[in-house]
Amino acid sequence: MPKQVDHHERRESIARALWRVVDEQGWERATMREVARAAEVSLGQLQHYFSSRAEMLAFAMESASDQTSRRVQEGLSALDETVHPRDVLRLVLLEMLPLRPESRATSRMNAAYVLEAMHDPSLRRRIGAGLRDQRAVVEQLIRQAMQDGQIGSESDPAVETDLILALTGLAPLLELDAIEPRAALAAIDAHLDRLFLPAP
Amino acid sequence: MPKQVDHHERRESIARALWRVVDEQGWERATMREVARAAEVSLGQLQHYFSSRAEMLAFAMESASDQTSRRVQEGLSALDETVHPRDVLRLVLLEMLPLRPESRATSRMNAAYVLEAMHDPSLRRRIGAGLRDQRAVVEQLIRQAMQDGQIGSESDPAVETDLILALTGLAPLLELDAIEPRAALAAIDAHLDRLFLPAP
Repeated sequence: MPKQVDHHERRESIARALWRVVDEQGWERATMREVARAAEVSLGQLQHYFSSRAEMLAFAMESASDQTSRRVQEGLSALDETVHPRDVLRLVLLEMLPLRPESRATSRMNAAYVLEAMHDPSLRRRIGAGLRDQRAVVEQLIRQAMQDGQIGSESDPAVETDLILALTGLAPLLELDAIEPRAALAAIDAHLDRLFLPAP
Repeated sequence: MPKQVDHHERRESIARALWRVVDEQGWERATMREVARAAEVSLGQLQHYFSSRAEMLAFAMESASDQTSRRVQEGLSALDETVHPRDVLRLVLLEMLPLRPESRATSRMNAAYVLEAMHDPSLRRRIGAGLRDQRAVVEQLIRQAMQDGQIGSESDPAVETDLILALTGLAPLLELDAIEPRAALAAIDAHLDRLFLPAP
C-alpha cells in the first residue's frame, strides 16, 4: 500500500514543519498558511492532509508523543539488559524536559497545547485522556517497583506518581534560564534517590 | 496626589480585565481591542494607559505577582504567630497552583507568559529575572530552616529549592483534570514531610 504510506509520511513531514514554526516563531504563528510555507506545500495540499488547524495540531502532538516514547525506548535498549525502574523514570523525565533540541520542541508544543486546550473542549478531552494514560503507565511502574522491593512499601503509589510527573515543572525554569541543565539533573537524581531504596 | 492614584487604579482595573479575557477566552484573544472592551474603555483610553500590548502584559503580570505575594502574606498572618517555614512553602505552592479562581487566573497568565517570552527577548529577560528573584527567596527560606535545624543538614539547599519550584508542574495536571485538587495537596504534603525533619 504505497499510497497509504505516502499519506502518513506526508502528514509526519507536515507535523515536523509545524514543530519548526512553533519552536522558532511561537504558537500563534502556527497557522495553516505558515505551516504550509514551512513544509513547502501549497495551502490546498496542506488542507488535503488536514481539514483544520485543530486536526493538524492534534496529529502533530500525538506524533510528538510517539517520538518521545521511541526516544525513551531507544535510550532503554542502550542501557544494560536488566533495566532498573529508576533508569526508566529518569529517561522519561529527561525526554519530557527541554534539555535537547528534540525534547525542547516537544516540551514547547506540549506547553502551548495545554494552554490551547483550556478553551477548546475537544482538545481538552483528547489531551486530558493522553495525560491520564501517561500517568497510569508511571503509576504501574511504581507499583511494580514496590512489589519488587525497589521502593519502600510505606510509599503511596498515587502520590509518588504525581510527584514524578510534577518534575516537568522544571521546564519553565530551564526555558527562562532560571536554572542550568545540570541543576535540573541534580534535582531529578535527588528526588529519585529518595524514592528508591538503596540497592541491597 | 489623587491623579497618580487614579492612574494606577485605572491600570490595575485594566489588568483585571486582561485576566478575565485570558481566563475566559485564552491568551490569543487578549488584544488591546478585546481588553478595552472587557475593561469598558475605548481603545484610545487604553492606549493612554499602555502604549503597547507588551507593556500591558508586563504590567498585568507584575501586578498578578504582587497579588500572589499579598495572598501569601494574608495567609501567613492568619496562621499562628510562630509560622513554621513548612507552612510558608505550602502556602506559596498553593497560591501558585490553579486551585482557586484567583490563583487559577494567575497560573494561566503565567503559563502563557512563559510561552510568549520564548520568542520575545525583552519579556524573556524580565520574566527570567522575576523567576530568579523568586527562586532566591525560596532558597533563603530553606537555608534558614537548615540553620534552625528544621531541615536536615545533609540537604542541598539549591536542589531542594528547585524541587519545591518544580511542584508547580502539578498545574497542567490539575488544569486537564488528570489529578484532583486533593491529590495535588497530598503530593505537596508528602514532599514537604520528607524535606522537613519531624518536630522535636
